[in-house]
Amino acid sequence: MSLIVQKFGGTSVANAERVFNVARIITETHQAGNGVVAVVSAQGDTTDDLIEKAKEINPAASKREMDVLLSTGEQISMALVAMAIQKMGFPVVSLTGQQAGMRTDNTYGNARINRIDTERIQSELGKGKIVIIAGFQGLNRYDDITTLGRGGSDTTAVAFAAALNADLCQIYTDVDGVYTADPRIVKDAHKLDEISYDEMLELASLGAQVLHNRSVEMAKRYNVDLEVLSSFKKNQGTKVKEVVHVEKMLIRGVARDNDVARISIIGLPDQPGTAFRIFSLLAKSRINVDIILQSIGRDGTKDVSFTVGKGCLDEALTILNENLPGLGGRAITHDSNISKVSIVGAGMATNAGVAATMFEALYEAGINIQMISTSEIKVSVLIDLDEAERAVKVVHNAFHFGE
Amino acid sequence: MSLIVQKFGGTSVANAERVFNVARIITETHQAGNGVVAVVSAQGDTTDDLIEKAKEINPAASKREMDVLLSTGEQISMALVAMAIQKMGFPVVSLTGQQAGMRTDNTYGNARINRIDTERIQSELGKGKIVIIAGFQGLNRYDDITTLGRGGSDTTAVAFAAALNADLCQIYTDVDGVYTADPRIVKDAHKLDEISYDEMLELASLGAQVLHNRSVEMAKRYNVDLEVLSSFKKNQGTKVKEVVHVEKMLIRGVARDNDVARISIIGLPDQPGTAFRIFSLLAKSRINVDIILQSIGRDGTKDVSFTVGKGCLDEALTILNENLPGLGGRAITHDSNISKVSIVGAGMATNAGVAATMFEALYEAGINIQMISTSEIKVSVLIDLDEAERAVKVVHNAFHFGE
Repeated sequence: MSLIVQKFGGTSVANAERVFNVARIITETHQAGNGVVAVVSAQGDTTDDLIEKAKEINPAASKREMDVLLSTGEQISMALVAMAIQKMGFPVVSLTGQQAGMRTDNTYGNARINRIDTERIQSELGKGKIVIIAGFQGLNRYDDITTLGRGGSDTTAVAFAAALNADLCQIYTDVDGVYTADPRIVKDAHKLDEISYDEMLELASLGAQVLHNRSVEMAKRYNVDLEVLSSFKKNQGTKVKEVVHVEKMLIRGVARDNDVARISIIGLPDQPGTAFRIFSLLAKSRINVDIILQSIGRDGTKDVSFTVGKGCLDEALTILNENLPGLGGRAITHDSNISKVSIVGAGMATNAGVAATMFEALYEAGINIQMISTSEIKVSVLIDLDEAERAVKVVHNAFHFGE
Repeated sequence: MSLIVQKFGGTSVANAERVFNVARIITETHQAGNGVVAVVSAQGDTTDDLIEKAKEINPAASKREMDVLLSTGEQISMALVAMAIQKMGFPVVSLTGQQAGMRTDNTYGNARINRIDTERIQSELGKGKIVIIAGFQGLNRYDDITTLGRGGSDTTAVAFAAALNADLCQIYTDVDGVYTADPRIVKDAHKLDEISYDEMLELASLGAQVLHNRSVEMAKRYNVDLEVLSSFKKNQGTKVKEVVHVEKMLIRGVARDNDVARISIIGLPDQPGTAFRIFSLLAKSRINVDIILQSIGRDGTKDVSFTVGKGCLDEALTILNENLPGLGGRAITHDSNISKVSIVGAGMATNAGVAATMFEALYEAGINIQMISTSEIKVSVLIDLDEAERAVKVVHNAFHFGE
């Protein structure tokens, strides 16, 4: 008997018909002789509706109370999915994050998982029950509800798969796998059968919007076999695992991320510790920084530019402006009208010309590059938001994915 | 400093404006130098909407999963009320039933309170915080969510008032107190300034729909001073406490309860233990029986009639039909097209003519009485549902409440 963890997103449980569709997938897996733990998100627009309710009352509500509010969305879903499974005649129990043993740190709205106490789940599985768990939520050491923030439900599923030593973690979503580019933008994009953790990680963090990078990071760390597949089509999905590539260069895909804003601090003293002080200030407020560029010092000063998620821009600017005198900078500029377009693939670093091919395609399309960042398996460029879709198309075309 | 427990029903928190109204009442009580613990119900139609969602998927869903689902309604309310209070600049924390220490038995959907661990609440009050608690819910010894069933939020408030040894428990609702009859039916009904627990108990269980009898029973047992008042009008409400009446007969009011159905078992053997067996069967399924009448034995058989809530009728009939051979009865009849009209007041038993005045009024109005039940402080009659409103009017008139 295998143990399979399945995760169903908000669109997969959006109404009664879809709840039964999910119940069918779960019970078929159960009937095939597997233990099943299913993690569910809030139905469709529930989370947005709850946020709207909160905003109407207090747009600056504490994150603790927001978590109390938002965690109800997944609790509603888990009960409904369990009821559908009961209707189909299978033994089932639904568990909140707390009941399922999810223990987190105290960062309301964006908590990190500390540990999972699997005792209750193991006991329910031992009784032959299908276990439905509310994604996205846990309990901190003050006995208060926390939510895991963006990508939290994917991360919940992978964390339970790791803690339970599951054989497979299936992420059911509204797309049927990982594509070489967003199929809504690039018509001849095609689905990948498999992809490595590292490649998926770059694709996820670059806005492929299939799997959140936190979940992939965790899958890689605990070596959890992932599968991304559609809850609507019965196609084979994309497997995410530790793939060993041969020397051949493999560009996996082109991704775009519009949730990015650039901040630049101008005229900083050209001395050690400047970058450290900037980024430790931001880290204290749990603001994640992505691409960082530092200009070469000139006239005793230098500039530091970096990107943050659009949602963190205001908070980051407030913190930096307050501390600008201490940092010794002259001015702060920012731009949220930008997009990050990236190519991802193992072996990129050892294959000359990959970045050049990308830059050439953008140049020929007349698209200006504002910042460049490279790693072992990706090349990212920051460009104007208005040009992002066109950039994805021309770059996808340049690498002949369609052929 | 006094400690005041306040309870706000579903209509009191139905939208953002009303949430702020509730926040205003709470913070004014806090500003007057009192510790405040507020218990809130689910917003307006939330509970009905959730029940609808469940029915669409599985009308026979387990009570455990129903409780998982329904408990989210109060959790949403408590977060929104806390957010409104934050907006007004006061320190506040919201707690689920579980966090507030509410421990219940295992009867999903209709749990009884076992105990309250007040540690967390005391700690938050000690920090000067206003505490908002989700009504209607607790945790059983399996670490699963339970709901308290009908009247659960009132009962929650009284239980916390008792556990915290509060000075007063205020029940805010959409009426401004306890009236001598339903003001929607009887125009010259008037508000009582105070009423004893026992009188309120009879009025509540008889359908005055102001306070649920479980909450009044608990208030009486732990001697909690109650006050029923409106969250919309700034009127003085009705105080419910241990009132010592002088010998004077005091009819407190006329009440009507349409949530009643009659069951009769015909042709039972006229021997000891028959009633015991019937009512222990029903008690096992937690079906509450109200008025019980047993006919005088004749020809070795007797009939037993009793009333149950309309919601329990089908279940009660199923149980009784299954067991009819064992009980030795000949047939079961039932009628759900009835209403119970009652007069309540201390000193009734020692004042001749009270029941007679009621019966005379009904006789003159041509209303037929099906069953009669009397206690120390009430007289109830079962009549046709269609005549209930008229009965309340003529009885109210007969006792000259309007004068």
